[in-house]
Amino acid sequence: MPALKLYRLYISRDRKYARVLHNMLGFVPRNLSLYKLAFRHKSVAPQLKEGLKNSNERLEFLGDAVLGAIVGEMLFKKYPYRDEGFLTEMRSKIVNRNHLNQLARKIGIGDLMDYDSRMIHNPIKQGSLMGDAFEALVGAIYLDQGYVFTKEFILKRILKPHVDVDALEQTETNFKSKLIEWCQRHGKEVLFELMPNEEGARTKLFTVKVFVDNEECGTGQDFTKKNAEKTAAEHACALLGL
Amino acid sequence: MPALKLYRLYISRDRKYARVLHNMLGFVPRNLSLYKLAFRHKSVAPQLKEGLKNSNERLEFLGDAVLGAIVGEMLFKKYPYRDEGFLTEMRSKIVNRNHLNQLARKIGIGDLMDYDSRMIHNPIKQGSLMGDAFEALVGAIYLDQGYVFTKEFILKRILKPHVDVDALEQTETNFKSKLIEWCQRHGKEVLFELMPNEEGARTKLFTVKVFVDNEECGTGQDFTKKNAEKTAAEHACALLGL
Repeated sequence: MPALKLYRLYISRDRKYARVLHNMLGFVPRNLSLYKLAFRHKSVAPQLKEGLKNSNERLEFLGDAVLGAIVGEMLFKKYPYRDEGFLTEMRSKIVNRNHLNQLARKIGIGDLMDYDSRMIHNPIKQGSLMGDAFEALVGAIYLDQGYVFTKEFILKRILKPHVDVDALEQTETNFKSKLIEWCQRHGKEVLFELMPNEEGARTKLFTVKVFVDNEECGTGQDFTKKNAEKTAAEHACALLGL
Repeated sequence: MPALKLYRLYISRDRKYARVLHNMLGFVPRNLSLYKLAFRHKSVAPQLKEGLKNSNERLEFLGDAVLGAIVGEMLFKKYPYRDEGFLTEMRSKIVNRNHLNQLARKIGIGDLMDYDSRMIHNPIKQGSLMGDAFEALVGAIYLDQGYVFTKEFILKRILKPHVDVDALEQTETNFKSKLIEWCQRHGKEVLFELMPNEEGARTKLFTVKVFVDNEECGTGQDFTKKNAEKTAAEHACALLGL
C-alpha cells in the first residue's frame, strides 16, 4: 500500500472518516471534504453566501450528469440492437429517484448523512434525500478521481452487485399499487381525483391529481384515465422517495 | 505526424472523408464508420433489424449524455457560487435543440449530413436534424477517443470559439418573438390560441396552443396567459429547430 494511502487511513486527522469511506467505497479518497459535502443536506448546511448554502445540491447536479453518461454508455454497449427509446427508458429505470434511494440505502449512505433530524419521521420531507446524496457522491468521486475511475466504480461496485439490469428490463413499475401499499403501511389516506376536462378542448385529455393525507403529491395527464393515474402516482412516488 | 495519421489522411481508401473530418474537427479520427453513422439521419438509414434503423439516433442518445456531463462540469467550475438551479438553466441554454442546431451549422455539419433531400424545404420536418447530428457526433468522438479527449474537444473547439457563456447568462430567450419573426420571414401564419379553462378546476391554469399554418406546434400551461404563451412558443421553436 503506498505511503500516502497509509497516511490517509491511519495517521491523518481524518483517518476515521477515511476508513469509513474506504469500507463503503472500496478505495481511499483523496479529497475528503468533497465527500463530506456530498453527504450534507441543505437542512443543516451553512450559508456560503447570499442565496447559496454549502450543501450537496451542486455536487448532485454534477453527479446526475456524470451518472447519466456512465449508465447511458453501459446500456448503449449492452444493447447494440435496441433503439434510443428503449435505452432512455432503461436508463430512467436505473437512475430514477426511487431506484437511487434504494441504491443509496444498500451501500449505507444513511449512516454518513448529515441532515436535520426532524426530517427522519417525515417521509414526505425526507423524500429523495438518499438518492440525491448518492448522485452527489458520484459528483464527488468524479472530481476526486476523474471520469474513468468513476465509471469503473459505478460499473463494478454499484451496478454489478446491486442492479439486475436484465430483471429491470422485464419490469414495468406499477407506481399506483406501490403508492397505495406504502400509504396503507404508513396509515395515510391516498386519493386519486379526476379533474374536470377542459371545456371545448380539441383533445380529450384526462387530468388526475393524487393527494396523500390531503396534500397534493402529483399530477398526471393522458388520453386515458388509467395512464393519467399512473403518471400522477409516479410523480407522487418520486416525491415521497418510494 | 505519426505514420498511422499519415496513412489515414493520404493513403487509406477513406482518405478524402478523413481529411474532411480532420478539417472540421481538428483531429484525425480513428474509426470513420462511427462518424458516418453520426451523420446518417433515419430518413435514409438502412434497416438493421426489425424495428431498428442503422441511423444516428443511438449515438445521439449517448452524445446527449456525454455532452450534458461535460457542459455540466464546465459550469460547475466556472460558477462556484451559483446554485444548481442556475447551473441547470445555463446548461439548458447551451444544450437546447435550438442552440445545438446553430452550433452544428457553425461547424459545418450540414455538408456531411446524409438525409432524405425531400426534407430540405420543409423546416418542420427538418426540425432538429442538425442538433441531433451534433449530439451524435459527440457520441462518436467519445467512442472513438474517450472521455478526456471529448471534453478537451468540446471545451476548446466548440465552446471557446462558438459559445459566449457570459452573454448567454444575460439573455432570456424570447421564444415568442423569435417564432413570430421566423413565421413572417417564411410567409407562414402563426396563431396562439387560448384554450378554455378546466371547469371547476382548483387552480386557474391557462392553456395556450400555438399553430403554424394550422399545424399544432406546441402547448403551454401556466398561471398567467403570457407564460403559457411563452412555453408554447418555446416548444414550437424546439420543434421547428429555431
